Amino acid sequence: MDPLFEIELDLATEGSRDAASALYGRLRAAIADGRLVAGARLPATRKAQAFFGVSRNVAMQAYEMLLTAGYAVSRHGAGTFVAPVTPAARAVPLPAGGDAGAALADTAGRLNPFWTRPAVRAAMGFWEEPGEQAPASTKKGPAIDFRPALIDSRLFPFDVFRRVSAKQLRGLERKPARLRSAQGNQGHFLLRQAIGRHFGMTRAVVCGADDVLVTSGAQQAFDLLARTLVAPGRTVVAIEDPGYPPMRVAFAAAGATLVPVRVDDEGLVVDDLPGDASVICVCPSHQFPLGVAMSARRRKALVEFARRRGAVIVEDDYDGEFRYDGSPLEALRATDAADVVFFVGTFSKCMLASLRLGFIVAPTWAMATLVAAKNCLDWHCATPVQMSVAGFIAEGHLAHHVRKVREVYRQRRQLLLDTLAAQLGDWLEPLPSFYGMHVAAVARAHSDLDDVADRMSQHGVQLHSLARYHLGPPARTGLVFGFGAADLDDIRRGLALQR
Amino acid sequence: MDPLFEIELDLATEGSRDAASALYGRLRAAIADGRLVAGARLPATRKAQAFFGVSRNVAMQAYEMLLTAGYAVSRHGAGTFVAPVTPAARAVPLPAGGDAGAALADTAGRLNPFWTRPAVRAAMGFWEEPGEQAPASTKKGPAIDFRPALIDSRLFPFDVFRRVSAKQLRGLERKPARLRSAQGNQGHFLLRQAIGRHFGMTRAVVCGADDVLVTSGAQQAFDLLARTLVAPGRTVVAIEDPGYPPMRVAFAAAGATLVPVRVDDEGLVVDDLPGDASVICVCPSHQFPLGVAMSARRRKALVEFARRRGAVIVEDDYDGEFRYDGSPLEALRATDAADVVFFVGTFSKCMLASLRLGFIVAPTWAMATLVAAKNCLDWHCATPVQMSVAGFIAEGHLAHHVRKVREVYRQRRQLLLDTLAAQLGDWLEPLPSFYGMHVAAVARAHSDLDDVADRMSQHGVQLHSLARYHLGPPARTGLVFGFGAADLDDIRRGLALQR
Repeated sequence: MDPLFEIELDLATEGSRDAASALYGRLRAAIADGRLVAGARLPATRKAQAFFGVSRNVAMQAYEMLLTAGYAVSRHGAGTFVAPVTPAARAVPLPAGGDAGAALADTAGRLNPFWTRPAVRAAMGFWEEPGEQAPASTKKGPAIDFRPALIDSRLFPFDVFRRVSAKQLRGLERKPARLRSAQGNQGHFLLRQAIGRHFGMTRAVVCGADDVLVTSGAQQAFDLLARTLVAPGRTVVAIEDPGYPPMRVAFAAAGATLVPVRVDDEGLVVDDLPGDASVICVCPSHQFPLGVAMSARRRKALVEFARRRGAVIVEDDYDGEFRYDGSPLEALRATDAADVVFFVGTFSKCMLASLRLGFIVAPTWAMATLVAAKNCLDWHCATPVQMSVAGFIAEGHLAHHVRKVREVYRQRRQLLLDTLAAQLGDWLEPLPSFYGMHVAAVARAHSDLDDVADRMSQHGVQLHSLARYHLGPPARTGLVFGFGAADLDDIRRGLALQR
Repeated sequence: MDPLFEIELDLATEGSRDAASALYGRLRAAIADGRLVAGARLPATRKAQAFFGVSRNVAMQAYEMLLTAGYAVSRHGAGTFVAPVTPAARAVPLPAGGDAGAALADTAGRLNPFWTRPAVRAAMGFWEEPGEQAPASTKKGPAIDFRPALIDSRLFPFDVFRRVSAKQLRGLERKPARLRSAQGNQGHFLLRQAIGRHFGMTRAVVCGADDVLVTSGAQQAFDLLARTLVAPGRTVVAIEDPGYPPMRVAFAAAGATLVPVRVDDEGLVVDDLPGDASVICVCPSHQFPLGVAMSARRRKALVEFARRRGAVIVEDDYDGEFRYDGSPLEALRATDAADVVFFVGTFSKCMLASLRLGFIVAPTWAMATLVAAKNCLDWHCATPVQMSVAGFIAEGHLAHHVRKVREVYRQRRQLLLDTLAAQLGDWLEPLPSFYGMHVAAVARAHSDLDDVADRMSQHGVQLHSLARYHLGPPARTGLVFGFGAADLDDIRRGLALQR
């Protein structure tokens, strides 16, 4: 088992939770790049603690994964061995390489090069694991996660959701016809109805079930809008800079020309919009990642611009339900702009990202085309999940849940702002924001943020700089502090680590 | 209530099942096209039977939908009235029109014209309601449904699926980290593992979890492959003619040049492939819609063509688990062609279409790029559904279910072939096929199929001609008889109706 001595198995930061997956991944990588050669015997699972620092049970799970994936073979009584022919070797006559290099192995040029562009990979990079996160305090390691766009899955009422889901599935059993997609590829009627009611109340988006199209999360909404609003090679799409990279990728993939537009303390600088922009993507309530809200006059100017130029607006309202301060800001779509605004909402923040449910409230003139494109993408979203969420909303659990977690996030946000002022006030100035689960802070003159960020990352703190969200050159340097996956204890400990 | 006298409310064929949705749809259409004017009072629900032929409860549900959608307003004690400003009028300053014309209302040209092409609409048209169907014998009306690509939802073990789902959700509740998409945007590991095992057994597709990418049904697999394999405007994609229209739309939408290639009794005519084809889409086991299997020598020639020209093959194996006769035909991917074949499987036929789950078994060199594109499309499929299906397979229910329903469909198929021979043998000759839930039959010389089809449709039988599946000029005329949604009684009655 000599080869294993060279395998870096830094499992400490993983916690016991995903240890089996992590061990599997490391072993697989070692096999793929030849550190573990065909025929090598893996350590006996009873020695797992000594070799890998994990329990025997965890090692057995990891070995099972290797066996299933074809990377290992089991010889009865003798143990587990690296397979003589691994999946990669079996399938490809091309120069292999590890997982990361797999896409580059298409030497025959059979793949659309868009997806292998480094910029595209980087934009989606972090986001390969969006969604729920357990705060660091529940983990073994020191990792504290300040990345934005994550939520705390511990707050979700799994018991209630399970009860509602079981009830909905019983309904299906009695009346299987309800499972039929005839209920509408636009989305299950009961869910569209529930969305209209709930977001009409919380976001003042007045819409009926007919105005709503259910998507597989906000990301599919962006992709669907890109594919219906963009004429490849001709359409200019204005995006906020800084902004949300995966949305940009969706529009770029559809063949749009992206034009980054500056954001200041009043939101998108409407005067800077290119005259030929026919799609404008904005987050008016809680700009991502700056957090600023778009001012009333900018909103008015933006809608006027769209009407005058025949353009449309894509409003990303990813966390608009979590407002803490300030006067209520209606969604852009809530004003008299239903003819030009596509409102994108999601259940990833107010429920769970792993449900993959979001929606578009669309202008009437576009709905039939959106449904035609949705049919081509995947017909419709999984009916059981749609019905479960519809039941969850209709029974009032969503409204209750949002009220409850808003209080939790409000406390985290306050502690974050207080601690930033007390400990990092000399370096950073938080930008005003009233919504959501993150706060951005820009550097004061002469402060060296790289230094601060470096020290924190050396302690295992995950933290994003504003720069990573820019397409154009960054106007200001700064940091983004998400508190969806960082609880009060994490915030205290994490911000102390910069010293 | 005069206007209602002009409203065609042909609810008899709907059964009581979807009566509320149907009534809602008809009333909404009447409001949209002006037959029901603003301010008109809708009939009291206690008169629902007289006006609409439905129960009071059904009418109340339909009115509730109208209220929610904004088409009606309720005045306390006075009844329900058509809203003064309906959603369409509220949102669009453009000439309105009914639902069907909504896309045409984009007079400003803001939508990608691809989706409004009549050919695209027609190709996806029928397919707006794919999936499960209750056979006619359970419905009130006379409608018998011989359309292909449907299954009989009554055969699905909803009770078992509910039990498995509840168990999986309890697992989530105890261990919410499992919900994390970190389990892999490529698909939940347990599901990919289960797919590898199940389809390795039933279809001889030898693959590990790492070779599998989970998609939202086969349609998303086609869309994903189109977007990764097609360079817009440059890539030539060869498709079987006749073939499955929604797959064509996915490739056309991605900017491919489609070249239809003839299919004979040995499957795709490989010699007819255009030399510059870089993607070739085939159904080797049970060609859609002809039903023929691809011969061994054609398979060999196809793989050789792909290797020689640097092309790839997309294998659509939509119902490969349902084999009745003949020697086992391995999937194309099962042979030594893992380097050039993308195998597309689906749970829509062997489980339920409304689960929206399918998968791609991909060559290793392409997987990282497929995952990058999947991230852009929607990150990953809904985790609760993935886990439920993984549990359903792992506990052996899928294998059991397939064995059970295969016997049901085998009987239907035999009755269909016997009855076709006895009653329509002079007009039609069934094409040999060993798989799936439909049989195609071509016209004998001089037989007038339009006449047969017309008589049947006059009796409410839904039946597709081969012509609708052709992109080029049809070589042979014929009919397609699906028995997924038509049970033994339907087959007997439906085929008798041609006389």
